[in-house]
Amino acid sequence: MILYDDPISGNGYKVRLAMAQLGVDCELIEVDILKGETRTPKFLRLNPNGKIPTLLLDDGRALSESNAILYYLASGSPLWPDDLYGQADVLRWMNFEQYSHEPYVAVARFMLHQPDPPDPAVLAEKQERGYAALDVMDGHLKSHEFFAAGRYSIADIALYAYTHVADEGGFDLGKYDAVNRWLESVRGRPGYVPMAPAD
Amino acid sequence: MILYDDPISGNGYKVRLAMAQLGVDCELIEVDILKGETRTPKFLRLNPNGKIPTLLLDDGRALSESNAILYYLASGSPLWPDDLYGQADVLRWMNFEQYSHEPYVAVARFMLHQPDPPDPAVLAEKQERGYAALDVMDGHLKSHEFFAAGRYSIADIALYAYTHVADEGGFDLGKYDAVNRWLESVRGRPGYVPMAPAD
Repeated sequence: MILYDDPISGNGYKVRLAMAQLGVDCELIEVDILKGETRTPKFLRLNPNGKIPTLLLDDGRALSESNAILYYLASGSPLWPDDLYGQADVLRWMNFEQYSHEPYVAVARFMLHQPDPPDPAVLAEKQERGYAALDVMDGHLKSHEFFAAGRYSIADIALYAYTHVADEGGFDLGKYDAVNRWLESVRGRPGYVPMAPAD
Repeated sequence: MILYDDPISGNGYKVRLAMAQLGVDCELIEVDILKGETRTPKFLRLNPNGKIPTLLLDDGRALSESNAILYYLASGSPLWPDDLYGQADVLRWMNFEQYSHEPYVAVARFMLHQPDPPDPAVLAEKQERGYAALDVMDGHLKSHEFFAAGRYSIADIALYAYTHVADEGGFDLGKYDAVNRWLESVRGRPGYVPMAPAD
């Protein structure tokens, strides 16, 4: 398989972390989002929505959207529960991540990584809604070791990716004791790899 | 089961449409988003993220996020493919809907339903990105009858909900021949129900 990915992407990191923990081997092709390399005709044939990560299977079929790729990789493994409610609850937290967390926590980080300073009002709104997502996570983790099904799953991988670098988006995680305990727990999982290689 | 829902919500309609097509019986409790009824302590115990639709199972467990509820209802039915790639591709389009479509197509509609006129620049940005999502859909549907796995699935239900009322968000669907053919096809499916009862 070939994973089209940009090392700065937390969405791509979700897939890289799951692959490392599942022992899945994959060729990596770097695509530079900021240089427009996801908008070329060649890339748009792989993913007409022009986003990484995109996975190209050995049979030539492509798969995009980080959460869909996580499902494809994890189905049948310990990262995906056996029972229907547990599976749906994993998807519940992965949808929470894509709708209520990533557009704020990840986008604030992205804004602060641009050469020009961000619009303060826009950044403030992203941070306010990002904190709302962190509040929900901390509340849940006060009484749950992991997000869904009583086990470490692709829901934890999906939420870990941008939460563990939330400080780069201006978020102070200091008051989130349960989130910090969980972040430490994820970092200690077998097969853990960091977001970007120290190069 | 009890479905907590607001009749104006396309996310809730996804669940209502799937239930109708699957023959699932469910009590409906209306929750008024605009009156803050998703932010009460009682509702937040069901869904700490304070959003409908939320499904309460007979055993007292709750499930939120429309796409997760769709998975829970459709697993094992004809609305969910049997093969792993087909399943992942359904999730791919459902994630596309939540990340690249709903925040623009649905939010533009929401903005135009408020008593105060929307900020023109904000509305224009929502519409621009909403059209980008519609472009991707139309391109795909030019060569595919349905979104994933060569069959009608919960991916179609998820994308139908806000696309078929996109005109209420100021979108002109006139040029999207493939989308219009697909909308007509969904409307003709057995068990189809409209978004809101004519009352």
